[in-house]
Amino acid sequence: MDTRPIGMFDSGCGGLTVLKEYMKLLPNEDFIYYGDTAHLPYGDKSPETIKSYSEEIVKFLIDQNVKMIIIACGTASATAYEYLKGKFNIEIRNIIEPTIKNINDKNIGVIATKSTIKSKAWETGILKYNPNANIKSIACPLFVPLIEEGFIDTPATNYVVDEYMKQFTLDSDVEISSLILGCTHYPLLQEKLKEVLDKNIKIINVGEYSAKDTLSYLKDNNMQNDASHNGVNKYYSSDDFELFKEMANKLGFEIN
Amino acid sequence: MDTRPIGMFDSGCGGLTVLKEYMKLLPNEDFIYYGDTAHLPYGDKSPETIKSYSEEIVKFLIDQNVKMIIIACGTASATAYEYLKGKFNIEIRNIIEPTIKNINDKNIGVIATKSTIKSKAWETGILKYNPNANIKSIACPLFVPLIEEGFIDTPATNYVVDEYMKQFTLDSDVEISSLILGCTHYPLLQEKLKEVLDKNIKIINVGEYSAKDTLSYLKDNNMQNDASHNGVNKYYSSDDFELFKEMANKLGFEIN
Repeated sequence: MDTRPIGMFDSGCGGLTVLKEYMKLLPNEDFIYYGDTAHLPYGDKSPETIKSYSEEIVKFLIDQNVKMIIIACGTASATAYEYLKGKFNIEIRNIIEPTIKNINDKNIGVIATKSTIKSKAWETGILKYNPNANIKSIACPLFVPLIEEGFIDTPATNYVVDEYMKQFTLDSDVEISSLILGCTHYPLLQEKLKEVLDKNIKIINVGEYSAKDTLSYLKDNNMQNDASHNGVNKYYSSDDFELFKEMANKLGFEIN
Repeated sequence: MDTRPIGMFDSGCGGLTVLKEYMKLLPNEDFIYYGDTAHLPYGDKSPETIKSYSEEIVKFLIDQNVKMIIIACGTASATAYEYLKGKFNIEIRNIIEPTIKNINDKNIGVIATKSTIKSKAWETGILKYNPNANIKSIACPLFVPLIEEGFIDTPATNYVVDEYMKQFTLDSDVEISSLILGCTHYPLLQEKLKEVLDKNIKIINVGEYSAKDTLSYLKDNNMQNDASHNGVNKYYSSDDFELFKEMANKLGFEIN
């Protein structure tokens, strides 16, 4: 047994979709969630910049005595994971690996931020486990601001979703049957995506795969928290905490 | 005569609309433009965070031997100007003051980022020179990402412009006759705004007022550059310079 909390971070509130999956599957664990709101969004920034931001957060989480760290941000997972792994002794997991290890499909779409797509982390990762896969990746940089502004149910979001998703249908070289949501904000657009995509396309929420993967790891290493304990969460943000709370609440996450 | 360059900064490329006005009115001046792309956008961040970013940039510009500094960013003008003014000896000008000193209208609209609107810098400033003014301020946080993604001429931008501008017409307590573009990105949406707003509403580009104000200051202090000199510009960015150039070019500014 290990009663220490699990550390988790994202550029802002997107990682809360990951935390949600963890709270369902690991209800006895405590979590410390860090939203790097002073630097968000990560999606348009360079790998060097994202590495240096992530490094500071990992140091902070280690100071909070966490037992492991989950990078609950697609962009940081894609660009900073190897760097952090080499720099720190603590167990660090990204949100890419658990999905690529478990996806068996041949024709796979990936949507994510600019930095993530540019990094080719998803493509390289999928091909490592599945060398015959056909992959089509699309950057969707407007999804995060539309979500954060509460514009999910508007014609503007419909148009932007349509425009980006068109690239999977019009003249596409790959007819996808699975779509990976490579940014942790995107599960909030899941219903919209379902409306415009062929209904046979399976939409992959990386938070689910990440939570299952962490559960196995904790079991294998006898690091689960006491089963009689109800998990509690602590939240931190690098910018004004009230702004973080406001944004989280707007997205349907209750933070007090 | 003072042949040193003028320093100018913004969170990213928005300030280039200000630089454009300067290049028209002060063609003999050299400029050093700094885009803080590692930290953009400023619009959602707290005043403390924006102050600390701005302070570093001002130090950098002073090291480049500039003769004065223009804050070509609405958000930093609103939240960090007084702080910077108190901290450094060099002449620093914001993009709010030149406009509020010269606007004579009674019913004024202001559109800007969240932080700028929250700071009340425009309202307070306008009322200082014009105590009877009626002011209505609206935050438009999606304008910057839509512009930066090159979505200006799309139904998504039309919808978002409509939604935000509705607030000036539906149940509005103030019937505006001037609209101040309080964010330096917004001149790129000027044509869209004209389409949805009453054609009698005067749209105010703060870059124009800022350039006039600086020209007077340089004349008064005999600090203009040699009239026979053709101005040259240098650009810096805090994140990958190639990304900065790409973004600037997408917005129609040529940077080599």
